[in-house]
Amino acid sequence: MAIELKDLTKRSENYSRWYNELVVKADLAEQADVRGCMVIKPYGYAIWEKMQQVLDSMFKETGVQNAYFPLLIPKSFLSKEAEHVEGFAKECAVVTHYRLKTNETHDGVVVDPEAKLEEELIIRPTSETIIWNTYKNWIKSYRDLPVLCNQWCNVMRWEMRTRLFLRTAEFLWQEGHTAHATREEAEQRAQQMLKVYAKFAEDYMAVPVVQGVKSATERFAGAIDTYTIEAMMQDGKALQSGTSHFLGQNFGKAFGVQFLNKENQLEYAWATSWGVSTRLMGALIMTHSDDNGLVLPPRLAPIQVVIIPIGKPAQMEALDQKAAEMVAKFKELGVSVKYDNDDSKRPGFKFADYELKGVPVRIVLGARDLEKGEVEIMRRDTLEKNNVSVEGIEEYAKNLLDDIQQNIYKKALDYRLAHTCECSDYEEFKQKVQDGGFFLCPWDGTEETEAQIKEETQATIRCIPFDTDQSNPGTDMVSGKPAKYKALVARAY
Amino acid sequence: MAIELKDLTKRSENYSRWYNELVVKADLAEQADVRGCMVIKPYGYAIWEKMQQVLDSMFKETGVQNAYFPLLIPKSFLSKEAEHVEGFAKECAVVTHYRLKTNETHDGVVVDPEAKLEEELIIRPTSETIIWNTYKNWIKSYRDLPVLCNQWCNVMRWEMRTRLFLRTAEFLWQEGHTAHATREEAEQRAQQMLKVYAKFAEDYMAVPVVQGVKSATERFAGAIDTYTIEAMMQDGKALQSGTSHFLGQNFGKAFGVQFLNKENQLEYAWATSWGVSTRLMGALIMTHSDDNGLVLPPRLAPIQVVIIPIGKPAQMEALDQKAAEMVAKFKELGVSVKYDNDDSKRPGFKFADYELKGVPVRIVLGARDLEKGEVEIMRRDTLEKNNVSVEGIEEYAKNLLDDIQQNIYKKALDYRLAHTCECSDYEEFKQKVQDGGFFLCPWDGTEETEAQIKEETQATIRCIPFDTDQSNPGTDMVSGKPAKYKALVARAY
Repeated sequence: MAIELKDLTKRSENYSRWYNELVVKADLAEQADVRGCMVIKPYGYAIWEKMQQVLDSMFKETGVQNAYFPLLIPKSFLSKEAEHVEGFAKECAVVTHYRLKTNETHDGVVVDPEAKLEEELIIRPTSETIIWNTYKNWIKSYRDLPVLCNQWCNVMRWEMRTRLFLRTAEFLWQEGHTAHATREEAEQRAQQMLKVYAKFAEDYMAVPVVQGVKSATERFAGAIDTYTIEAMMQDGKALQSGTSHFLGQNFGKAFGVQFLNKENQLEYAWATSWGVSTRLMGALIMTHSDDNGLVLPPRLAPIQVVIIPIGKPAQMEALDQKAAEMVAKFKELGVSVKYDNDDSKRPGFKFADYELKGVPVRIVLGARDLEKGEVEIMRRDTLEKNNVSVEGIEEYAKNLLDDIQQNIYKKALDYRLAHTCECSDYEEFKQKVQDGGFFLCPWDGTEETEAQIKEETQATIRCIPFDTDQSNPGTDMVSGKPAKYKALVARAY
Repeated sequence: MAIELKDLTKRSENYSRWYNELVVKADLAEQADVRGCMVIKPYGYAIWEKMQQVLDSMFKETGVQNAYFPLLIPKSFLSKEAEHVEGFAKECAVVTHYRLKTNETHDGVVVDPEAKLEEELIIRPTSETIIWNTYKNWIKSYRDLPVLCNQWCNVMRWEMRTRLFLRTAEFLWQEGHTAHATREEAEQRAQQMLKVYAKFAEDYMAVPVVQGVKSATERFAGAIDTYTIEAMMQDGKALQSGTSHFLGQNFGKAFGVQFLNKENQLEYAWATSWGVSTRLMGALIMTHSDDNGLVLPPRLAPIQVVIIPIGKPAQMEALDQKAAEMVAKFKELGVSVKYDNDDSKRPGFKFADYELKGVPVRIVLGARDLEKGEVEIMRRDTLEKNNVSVEGIEEYAKNLLDDIQQNIYKKALDYRLAHTCECSDYEEFKQKVQDGGFFLCPWDGTEETEAQIKEETQATIRCIPFDTDQSNPGTDMVSGKPAKYKALVARAY
């Protein structure tokens, strides 16, 4: 199948359509024939695997261990934490039966009415309830604490409007669940994991993020505080990219997780939970990519360098040989490289394909260039091409990968800074927010103004940013009352 | 909580109880409060992760890529392959609704009858149907072939009698699904993956396996041929540890996956699938462990070497310092090491605990020994202790790990060979099979004799082994008819 680049909608034409098309054309994912679910294709999954590897080792460095808890949650567990059930019982997949049987016409299967479960089971939308029900047997004394578990798994939320990676009924994620002896330790852990997420987003995904705390209405159902990282997409909208929750003793109390503290008194355990999901794929795609296709940060690209030979049939053996030397050197340097000498595809097709797939560096091994001791090298982020000496090309390319990693981060940060402004005039805000962007606005801290902003502008309070000076927030732009915070307000995915 | 070794049932007393207790006491897994499901605890999961890493890279070396397909399968998909639905529709978790609502007394949630799905969804018991439904869009020409996908995921089969790791309603596994242009290529792939499994079992798990092909009745539902690896547990029973299926064109036809071959004619694609699961944990535990607890193969042990200091409080600083040097050298050698100087636990407790957890090598760093330039080193497999020079202890321990890996494999193989015999007399077989063991028996190839053996002895035909001379199989021990094969017969898990 030929790739027709002109088929890819331009961002300026329709950003949303550009995204949807790009995900499919770059072979990342596609809609499954199951409502709201996706198939993550090998190329997309290879990026997700790289994300998992990095995150997993970052978690383990902080003492976290992986474990696995059941997919299905008894319905009654959800009801044990009052706010939690409000947030998650509404839209979830319910297992009611455990058997099918052949139908009367013997050409299909039907649910066997005799195989009805006594208590329905819910496919986990998140696992606080099943995990804290388990922790109750693990935690008896302060010596058993902290418990620091994480699981990589699938979860399901019956979303009505879905988009590949950004919002799907089933998605993949990790969920960390920790239990602590003191409030302070749990709060610190929740903040620590947010910093892990921020570091991952910035250093690996090259996606700059604003760190902050959510308003009460935007909190996780059952949390005391929800911390978030918010990234800006190229259309100026915010994408919540990871959250970490301080859950207080809510789940400890709901599931009776008590321990004897050092003073020999029974106390409820303190909790955190924190997660990032395949939604990060959406953030990655939308932050860097362009009208030619994906732009991937080198540190997460499944293929970092592609080498494409150009020559007459008689010259190919020499090119193959030279390429083999280069591939060996790249592997020594720890660079993932692909040599594509498939002669059933023309070079022009390959160029467009690897651009579409966002391979950071392309080397053209041309027979004529090689006679001069040169190769052509292109960087995907700027599409800049250079002829450079074949001698030392591997180190050159490796440095270029570092440069691309830094450059796309800087570009994204510059974009965000250029589209972030302070705004304390509501009329001005209503005008400007149409075009997207982040707004730092004085907020009186009430749910009423928050709701009014949302209703009138579709923008929401993304967070109270940590790195914004909160000492003198001014006057609420909606109510005119004294502001409590400078809030980050934006339209969001 | 003190570990009371005397609490662990002896294998000779009750092998089955020994296993159940060991899984829990060694902190590998426990029953969840969801029928038939398990919680895999951090120590158990760490072993599973090591298995995953090795298998994953072995798959990738053969060209396989990872992907992810939906958890839920429309009910009608199951019916498309006649044998497949017979095998898997019977006991499966059925999602019928997508919403809960608050009950009338406002103290719980009930299924919202208005949120009934038009078509019920099944939690995947295996993914052939959903994957081949997807492949139909991926495969149009021989140029699109082969497709070599694998997924790591959870699956669910509503088993009535469950046991941790061996048979649980939900379990973790990998399932590979490949599509090919020719029958030969698909058959080769199915056999290739069986060899990968056998190599993994023998070289990493140190579990010797018999490779062979299943009888028609024991085949995977929808397969033309099922290849298997069968391991012998210490009670002489067989454990099917991995299977690889040649599926012919059954799923290609059921889901209309056709491609244009090189002769420009439409043809159905040829399929394989292959999987191993957390059941491997059961095989690992039951093959090597003893009355003191787990015995882990060094190549899959989360902790390979544990160092325990013994000294008076005033001596601890010097011991900590010496241990730090050793830990650094072990890390350089790629050995995973834990230094346990937790002074809230006595050395005797630690010894028992690490024995129970199967840490292959224990080093006791005693203040008095150290004055003589010595440490005590113990190997878990034989419990043999030696005092050796602290100089070069790291290389010594590393060699010991290799030796343990080989020794436990050899021990398991010797055990299997000692408990395998040829048997062509049915009365003798009925007698001997009571005590377990593998039997090579002449079989006429009919379902009738197979069924009779199963009914009368609870033993089953595990496979027709590849490495058994099949040229002159003799006379069927049940029917007295000419035998077609020498079959491996045994009681099994």
